[in-house]
Amino acid sequence: MTVSPLAPASFPAIPAIAGLTLATAASGLKYTGRDDMLLMRVGEGAAMAGVFTRSDTAAAPVIWCREALAAGPDNLRAVLVNAGNANAFTGSGGMDAVEESCRGMASRLGCDSRQLMMASTGVIGEPLDVPVLAAQFDNLANGTADWQDAARAIMTTDTFAKGACTSAMIDGVPVGIAGIAKGSGMIAPDMATMLGFIATDAAVPHDVLADLLTSATQRSFNAITVDSDTSTNDSVMLIATGAASHQPVSSADDPRLDEFRAALDAVMQDLAQQIVRDGEGASKFITIDVSGTADDSTAHRIGMAIANSPLVKTAIAGEDANWGRIVMAVGKAGAAIDQSRIGVAIGGIRIAADGARVEDYDEAPVAAHMKGQMIDIGVSVGAGVGTARVWTCDLTHGYISINADYRS
Amino acid sequence: MTVSPLAPASFPAIPAIAGLTLATAASGLKYTGRDDMLLMRVGEGAAMAGVFTRSDTAAAPVIWCREALAAGPDNLRAVLVNAGNANAFTGSGGMDAVEESCRGMASRLGCDSRQLMMASTGVIGEPLDVPVLAAQFDNLANGTADWQDAARAIMTTDTFAKGACTSAMIDGVPVGIAGIAKGSGMIAPDMATMLGFIATDAAVPHDVLADLLTSATQRSFNAITVDSDTSTNDSVMLIATGAASHQPVSSADDPRLDEFRAALDAVMQDLAQQIVRDGEGASKFITIDVSGTADDSTAHRIGMAIANSPLVKTAIAGEDANWGRIVMAVGKAGAAIDQSRIGVAIGGIRIAADGARVEDYDEAPVAAHMKGQMIDIGVSVGAGVGTARVWTCDLTHGYISINADYRS
Repeated sequence: MTVSPLAPASFPAIPAIAGLTLATAASGLKYTGRDDMLLMRVGEGAAMAGVFTRSDTAAAPVIWCREALAAGPDNLRAVLVNAGNANAFTGSGGMDAVEESCRGMASRLGCDSRQLMMASTGVIGEPLDVPVLAAQFDNLANGTADWQDAARAIMTTDTFAKGACTSAMIDGVPVGIAGIAKGSGMIAPDMATMLGFIATDAAVPHDVLADLLTSATQRSFNAITVDSDTSTNDSVMLIATGAASHQPVSSADDPRLDEFRAALDAVMQDLAQQIVRDGEGASKFITIDVSGTADDSTAHRIGMAIANSPLVKTAIAGEDANWGRIVMAVGKAGAAIDQSRIGVAIGGIRIAADGARVEDYDEAPVAAHMKGQMIDIGVSVGAGVGTARVWTCDLTHGYISINADYRS
Repeated sequence: MTVSPLAPASFPAIPAIAGLTLATAASGLKYTGRDDMLLMRVGEGAAMAGVFTRSDTAAAPVIWCREALAAGPDNLRAVLVNAGNANAFTGSGGMDAVEESCRGMASRLGCDSRQLMMASTGVIGEPLDVPVLAAQFDNLANGTADWQDAARAIMTTDTFAKGACTSAMIDGVPVGIAGIAKGSGMIAPDMATMLGFIATDAAVPHDVLADLLTSATQRSFNAITVDSDTSTNDSVMLIATGAASHQPVSSADDPRLDEFRAALDAVMQDLAQQIVRDGEGASKFITIDVSGTADDSTAHRIGMAIANSPLVKTAIAGEDANWGRIVMAVGKAGAAIDQSRIGVAIGGIRIAADGARVEDYDEAPVAAHMKGQMIDIGVSVGAGVGTARVWTCDLTHGYISINADYRS
């Protein structure tokens, strides 16, 4: 497998998060010669939050996690992850498989099955072989691993392991934030499935954590797209162990969280961008800024219409300054905008303003920008102060090769 | 240019429609050695109806046609078409260009500019050179052409000319229905732009014609997709010359129109399917039937989610019976369905029922079906009696080559 040309130079050095224990294991369920299971454990007093796919065909572990979070958000003790089988569209047998897995793992941890979250990624529609996973539960209960081990254990067809970390001060006390993610790899026989796990030693209760996670997700994982296809298993979880010594915070609006909120944004955007950098067949990383909408959600919708347009993405793959396709994508977004106020820029160079090409348009500098690896698109629509930024990659022969040439 | 492997064997023999005169001309605006302009003329007493793109960046000729239809739907005398320049996102200069074109053409026909409709297809964002078109107005006013000439004159990067015809009885009198269309071709430097023109000698007033057209469009042109990108110029027009001798009809619900309605559906579906058959890079023609939804529009939405999924389309290109991707697409459609009632079939072979793979699933016959050129997908969701059928093509290296490898 060739590593994506957009991959970071190396996996970052991520320190341990106090109060969190990682362990990995190799079940052999689908892959050989690598770990494919991950356990993330916390003690009492930790908090977890999660955001999940909005798909109507959400996978069994997603349904399980929603129920576990609703039933006892303050008593969660671990997250169990397996790679290679998504346990999606597996009917009631799929739900039984999650319960059986969590019960078996929980018995080794001395807690109840409902205190475990589970995440799965891989093939859709095939029954999950629980005994194969269960054979590794003792290893997971007794083992330890670092963040890079953990990032590798959740990969499916990713071409590189994805991690990020930073630190922030809360009330004068330093706390760490670390995270890993997996996303769309090459030669994938199945759809891209995105998982993200972020942990901190901050002391933040569940409801505050959930607020922070939802808000940061909107500006990170919900602001990326590779191919417009939504997974059955998308899950992002945020764990706060509470091991840090700052005074507890009880509100997401607490000004003591300002720096933490920015740091969480930074880690989650870093992880989200790494998924785009590993987008199937990607050769260019594209940043799209939309401004001048009535509200931010309208700007987001227009940004996603551009980011998901096959014609925009293939033009960029071809290094073609075909800006008319951007206008087309803005038009199809259904945002009820006035085209006579639309402006378009590529690489910071103004191409169109007030609904038409600028008179002195010179394609040469735009064409030069298109030859680079980092492509910037700006669209303004002159209808308000809403803004959004989204990220995507180009659409290349590599995407077709990965998804069509490969035979499952 | 290679003709699509899904092209019909030949252009059909389409008889003239009484009361309609066709003429074509070569402006040389973009193409050489071929006609690139079309005029469709009718006399007094004819009626026209049109449906147009819902894009917020609709092209100048689309805006013109909407206004012309609203202002005087019963006095329209001609449709002027040019290929090579879409006159889209051209600002107020683009509207002036349409008016100037229609005024010049109308003066040769002895009518007012507002009695002309106009349709353009080609590059977005470039000013339309009206004098180059105007040099052909005399030729268009004096010439005659057949349906195949007309179909060829509106092509951009289509690999074959698209036409269809049939006849029907209204009140015991035979009437003809003929139509042409253009759509997504190969080596296209720009987005697919779809135009369709259908004519009949039936005597049907504008409002009835508009009802018939809107209804038939929903089951034909609005039920196809190649790549999910909506054109700035999509236009379908229906012309009724009134030359047939049946008694006038005044309501779209008139039972005397039953056979006509079915015949119109047949012609429009034939044309729409020809556009899919010429989809950029297409190697397989895909029919998707969705049933069991609360209403037809929900079924349509699910069908389009499947038809627009890059992962479904690449799996089919790869002849891979990857049915989990169909489930994924159903899930992302946002149709609020209960996954425990979803069933999936390919090639008529039941793969999944009641939310999980059937126990005796045998992939062999499905894999054999995937090797064919015509792929049938069936999805049932067990929530009602709504149904929809949509058509699309696969997503291949050809699509990338056409849209990324080519440099404009």
